[in-house]
Amino acid sequence: MIRVGIVGGTGYTGVELLRILALHDAVEITAVTSRADTGKRVDEVYPNLRGYVNVVFVQPELEQLTECDVVFFATPNGTAMLMAEQLLARGIKVIDLSADFRLKNVDEWQQWYGMQHTSPDLIAQAVYGLPEVNREAMKSAELIACPGCYPTAVQLGFLPLIEQGLIEIDHLIADVKSGVSGAGRKAELSTLMSETGESFKAYAVAGHRHLPEITQGLSAIARQSVGLTFVPHLTPMIRGIHATLYARLLKPSAIDEVHAFYRQRYMAERFVDVLPLGTHADTRNVRGSNHCQIALFCPQGGSTLVILSVIDNLVKGAAGQAVQAMNIMYGLDEAQGLRAIALYP
Amino acid sequence: MIRVGIVGGTGYTGVELLRILALHDAVEITAVTSRADTGKRVDEVYPNLRGYVNVVFVQPELEQLTECDVVFFATPNGTAMLMAEQLLARGIKVIDLSADFRLKNVDEWQQWYGMQHTSPDLIAQAVYGLPEVNREAMKSAELIACPGCYPTAVQLGFLPLIEQGLIEIDHLIADVKSGVSGAGRKAELSTLMSETGESFKAYAVAGHRHLPEITQGLSAIARQSVGLTFVPHLTPMIRGIHATLYARLLKPSAIDEVHAFYRQRYMAERFVDVLPLGTHADTRNVRGSNHCQIALFCPQGGSTLVILSVIDNLVKGAAGQAVQAMNIMYGLDEAQGLRAIALYP
Amino acid sequence: MIRVGIVGGTGYTGVELLRILALHDAVEITAVTSRADTGKRVDEVYPNLRGYVNVVFVQPELEQLTECDVVFFATPNGTAMLMAEQLLARGIKVIDLSADFRLKNVDEWQQWYGMQHTSPDLIAQAVYGLPEVNREAMKSAELIACPGCYPTAVQLGFLPLIEQGLIEIDHLIADVKSGVSGAGRKAELSTLMSETGESFKAYAVAGHRHLPEITQGLSAIARQSVGLTFVPHLTPMIRGIHATLYARLLKPSAIDEVHAFYRQRYMAERFVDVLPLGTHADTRNVRGSNHCQIALFCPQGGSTLVILSVIDNLVKGAAGQAVQAMNIMYGLDEAQGLRAIALYP
Amino acid sequence: MIRVGIVGGTGYTGVELLRILALHDAVEITAVTSRADTGKRVDEVYPNLRGYVNVVFVQPELEQLTECDVVFFATPNGTAMLMAEQLLARGIKVIDLSADFRLKNVDEWQQWYGMQHTSPDLIAQAVYGLPEVNREAMKSAELIACPGCYPTAVQLGFLPLIEQGLIEIDHLIADVKSGVSGAGRKAELSTLMSETGESFKAYAVAGHRHLPEITQGLSAIARQSVGLTFVPHLTPMIRGIHATLYARLLKPSAIDEVHAFYRQRYMAERFVDVLPLGTHADTRNVRGSNHCQIALFCPQGGSTLVILSVIDNLVKGAAGQAVQAMNIMYGLDEAQGLRAIALYP
Repeated sequence: MIRVGIVGGTGYTGVELLRILALHDAVEITAVTSRADTGKRVDEVYPNLRGYVNVVFVQPELEQLTECDVVFFATPNGTAMLMAEQLLARGIKVIDLSADFRLKNVDEWQQWYGMQHTSPDLIAQAVYGLPEVNREAMKSAELIACPGCYPTAVQLGFLPLIEQGLIEIDHLIADVKSGVSGAGRKAELSTLMSETGESFKAYAVAGHRHLPEITQGLSAIARQSVGLTFVPHLTPMIRGIHATLYARLLKPSAIDEVHAFYRQRYMAERFVDVLPLGTHADTRNVRGSNHCQIALFCPQGGSTLVILSVIDNLVKGAAGQAVQAMNIMYGLDEAQGLRAIALYP
Repeated sequence: MIRVGIVGGTGYTGVELLRILALHDAVEITAVTSRADTGKRVDEVYPNLRGYVNVVFVQPELEQLTECDVVFFATPNGTAMLMAEQLLARGIKVIDLSADFRLKNVDEWQQWYGMQHTSPDLIAQAVYGLPEVNREAMKSAELIACPGCYPTAVQLGFLPLIEQGLIEIDHLIADVKSGVSGAGRKAELSTLMSETGESFKAYAVAGHRHLPEITQGLSAIARQSVGLTFVPHLTPMIRGIHATLYARLLKPSAIDEVHAFYRQRYMAERFVDVLPLGTHADTRNVRGSNHCQIALFCPQGGSTLVILSVIDNLVKGAAGQAVQAMNIMYGLDEAQGLRAIALYP
Repeated sequence: MIRVGIVGGTGYTGVELLRILALHDAVEITAVTSRADTGKRVDEVYPNLRGYVNVVFVQPELEQLTECDVVFFATPNGTAMLMAEQLLARGIKVIDLSADFRLKNVDEWQQWYGMQHTSPDLIAQAVYGLPEVNREAMKSAELIACPGCYPTAVQLGFLPLIEQGLIEIDHLIADVKSGVSGAGRKAELSTLMSETGESFKAYAVAGHRHLPEITQGLSAIARQSVGLTFVPHLTPMIRGIHATLYARLLKPSAIDEVHAFYRQRYMAERFVDVLPLGTHADTRNVRGSNHCQIALFCPQGGSTLVILSVIDNLVKGAAGQAVQAMNIMYGLDEAQGLRAIALYP
Repeated sequence: MIRVGIVGGTGYTGVELLRILALHDAVEITAVTSRADTGKRVDEVYPNLRGYVNVVFVQPELEQLTECDVVFFATPNGTAMLMAEQLLARGIKVIDLSADFRLKNVDEWQQWYGMQHTSPDLIAQAVYGLPEVNREAMKSAELIACPGCYPTAVQLGFLPLIEQGLIEIDHLIADVKSGVSGAGRKAELSTLMSETGESFKAYAVAGHRHLPEITQGLSAIARQSVGLTFVPHLTPMIRGIHATLYARLLKPSAIDEVHAFYRQRYMAERFVDVLPLGTHADTRNVRGSNHCQIALFCPQGGSTLVILSVIDNLVKGAAGQAVQAMNIMYGLDEAQGLRAIALYP
């Protein structure tokens, strides 16, 4: 059994990790931390876990985690970088769901996240945990930086096009819509039901922290700098991300040919599903599951491709992808603990 | 492997059966019928099942089902009663999620359901599939009538009080709220999002078909006729039933004593969970799971008890309970295939 | 023109007052206070008011309000009682939407609201602002205590039955469902969309502050003490209250007779609408309007009456009723500024 | 008083017309037709109109409309073209909310709408009712073709840029999100709450009927053919359209300069509101009102402009704009009957 620790067990990614790991046959949940809820039973805070999780929240201190084989950080940005080094030094693997180790450029990270990075040396060592791109490196990683939710949906959507060199990469557009759970479990006015229900809006159009992460990832694939306009939106639902991606073809290509490239590229991927031509993607079809579903269109036979890419932001966009990373690190079946089917309706 | 057939695979209870059974280790999905979608792949209609269900819809005819060991009916009322006899004659077990065999009194059934019953002889043979009441009879049943969603939540909520003889049973009140998936997957004006979103209403206050089913069940427990006012409501969400039940105590009782009776009564039940005193029930904590959570209050120390009982109408209120019934009929672990944790948030 | 001040302009009842008063022909909005947003334009905080409200938030100080003829308090409990006396002393009328002057018994108020009342002398002077009960007293009132949202829906629903002496009044039941805007505009975990969306729950079953207000009102009508079990619920929508009320008839009565009493009682009331027999009430039909719609049932011809009473919690349950009170105090047409039709769908 | 008829009074645009016109001081509702509900009171079908609309549905026949001065068509496509000629011949003005007279090219219309046009001669006579573009022509129009909901939001968003010649017009992108009421009041599976709640999807990406209408409008402004990729989406709310528009600047321009053009262009427009720089648009701020709010961004100082344009699809996108058209035709204050403030929250 893999002894697992979770730091930051009271956010939505934390409780989602618990929901997945509680049913993972190879895992034993050893420690779950919460500064605010120390001493409380986990299932008192999350009654959906009653009968499945029998642990009590402990302080987020190193000594609480030393019995673990691997520690997940489901914390706000800036926490994992304070503890990762000590854990790694003890031979404990680290899977960070926050943004601390996602950007390779420290200056850029400090600029976007507005704080000093306390473990810049670990950045190079961290493996960006998008299995569809970095599986080999992940197998031997000690420290994994899990991708953000938007970056997962957008990168998986553009990936085959960029690998194949089919599109202009200087003016990509990603118009992405997220459910409100992406904003986290924090007492804030802006995500009250009265504020977000029955309404739709864009936010952070001038610049969102996931922008440099996406361009870093896409540029690595393209082996040159890509240009991206990224507009995130808040949609009145709880879970789900729908990325609508726009790219111009470099030369006329039949849509079924492009579609074949996608099918080929993701044929061996358990969690990326290219839908039949003519089909649209719908976030409900991946809600609660670790799948990404992708649909392709070339409207009016023009030169602009439209790619629809949907995930559950808390699963493939966070906790599910983190467990997938753990499975890869430990040589387990990549889908272990991740076979839940999306909840429809 | 148990070879399973599902008649009526295109309603919400049908697709929910598929979601559960596709991951049930002891089951092989042999036939799924749909008159309208015959010939189509099931996962074309339900893309959430892509990668998990690889069958094609067939006609709802007897010959399509003869290879099955057990057939689930997830059909509108009036269908199971037409096919059950022939299936049973071939030694095929029948689990009916519709209302055809729920009421023991044929006249009452015909009055409430507005049609002639075509298999009145089977009614006596049918076992009402509420495991917490009828487990022993279910073990040897060939034909199980699964309880309705409202009746499940209400009966589980009142059960210990009636068994203990603690309350007046002539004026029970069940004020119950349901998500809209309870209305089924039918093209109807009244369940459009524009009609049910951002609004709340009672319906069928004058009389709802689940009323005689509930009173039949409660009266059997009480061994005398109970009186019930049952008011169903539609609440703007998809899944979940919240029953708020009111009963007057026959004599003053401490709430912790009543609570102890509930704990005792459901101690051995895997899917009924009595919450700690002071806690409220919330439908989100059972969404997608087969659990019923129950909370108890005695406001202001008065003589009126308030019982809160929540289930997911499509799981414990339909498909999950039907699979639980199958597990019981086949002597399997009652929780097999039903270990999903509620999806929160 | 009536010069109006609003203290506490940044809660939902405050902005709803602004929405209504901005289009009220007899009113001039003179001062709107907000401690947090002092100096900001009101329509910067509430862009729905752009083009309609051209004032800037000021400090909630007496000197900001001395030009007003009437001041509305849309504040948390405990604020109006600190300022009311000084305003009244200057001849400025006060309409309080908070709970400060609703309960006539100071001890009871202090117990339920958990603070010392600083103006107990004003309590007797305050007129409880339910026009359908207290219109005459309101005409000459200087200080009006506007009813709470739940109390409005429940009292209007029970009123004719109690006035006529038709029901047992010692065991009334009010099962009431509210949209989340009733919880106010406060940064709190419990009303995040991720917490309240797609879920339904009861809360404060052991005791809610509106219980003593309702029993005070109903007891005054009955001229004796009434017994009430009141269970509030949170339903996943923004606006609307649906009260489902249960009462036992003292002697058998035909439902159409009871219905006739309701029609008669509310015939002259502009904002209480008794629906035709057989019709259910639906919160969407009063959303954004000042109407209360009431439906009546006597299920299965039994002795238990079911009354459905719906309002918009922010209009008839708060700001609309407060403006109705102002119209009465100033001898205006009671519906002035309140003619908006409910927004459907 | 203007005597108004409404053909097709039982769809969402029909009932929205009634909601607006019932409070319009210069209007008398003379006839409301509904084939299915003939003989029923309008407020029986729409209880939100109780006390405001006292008419009975009549058959959609010419003789029912001859007393009218103006007739609104809130009908499915293909109905207005059958009756318009006869009404016009009697001197009755026609305001068509359907698509029958929106496209100037008959062949294109027939191709997109899949039917023969029965009044091709009237097409040239019809004035496209977007006041911000065609106000002068509308003043003397007898037949007005009201713009679709998507076309209204998209055209108002792009208008100043195209008029000023600031952007490349061959590769415009309109990523637009609509509430489900845009799909109309029809019994259909796809718009059930269980199908559209808690989910987000694009639809008709290959080609939507509003595409030729938008390109016709934008091309007319540009005086040359524009190229547009238009992707509509369904978002889980009832009312509201949020258009996110992307365009590349022909030469570097400061965003505040572009913003100044927008402010200038719409300065005199009552219903188009350009938000301050840095502000995002939110559909809730126009819900129930006739306003369009527009926000502008130039992310990362690049060459791609992002324009956010929000309307209520049933008001500025349908019934409100139709009443605005009527006001213009009759020389009334353009805002008469349209002063409702958006319902927030």
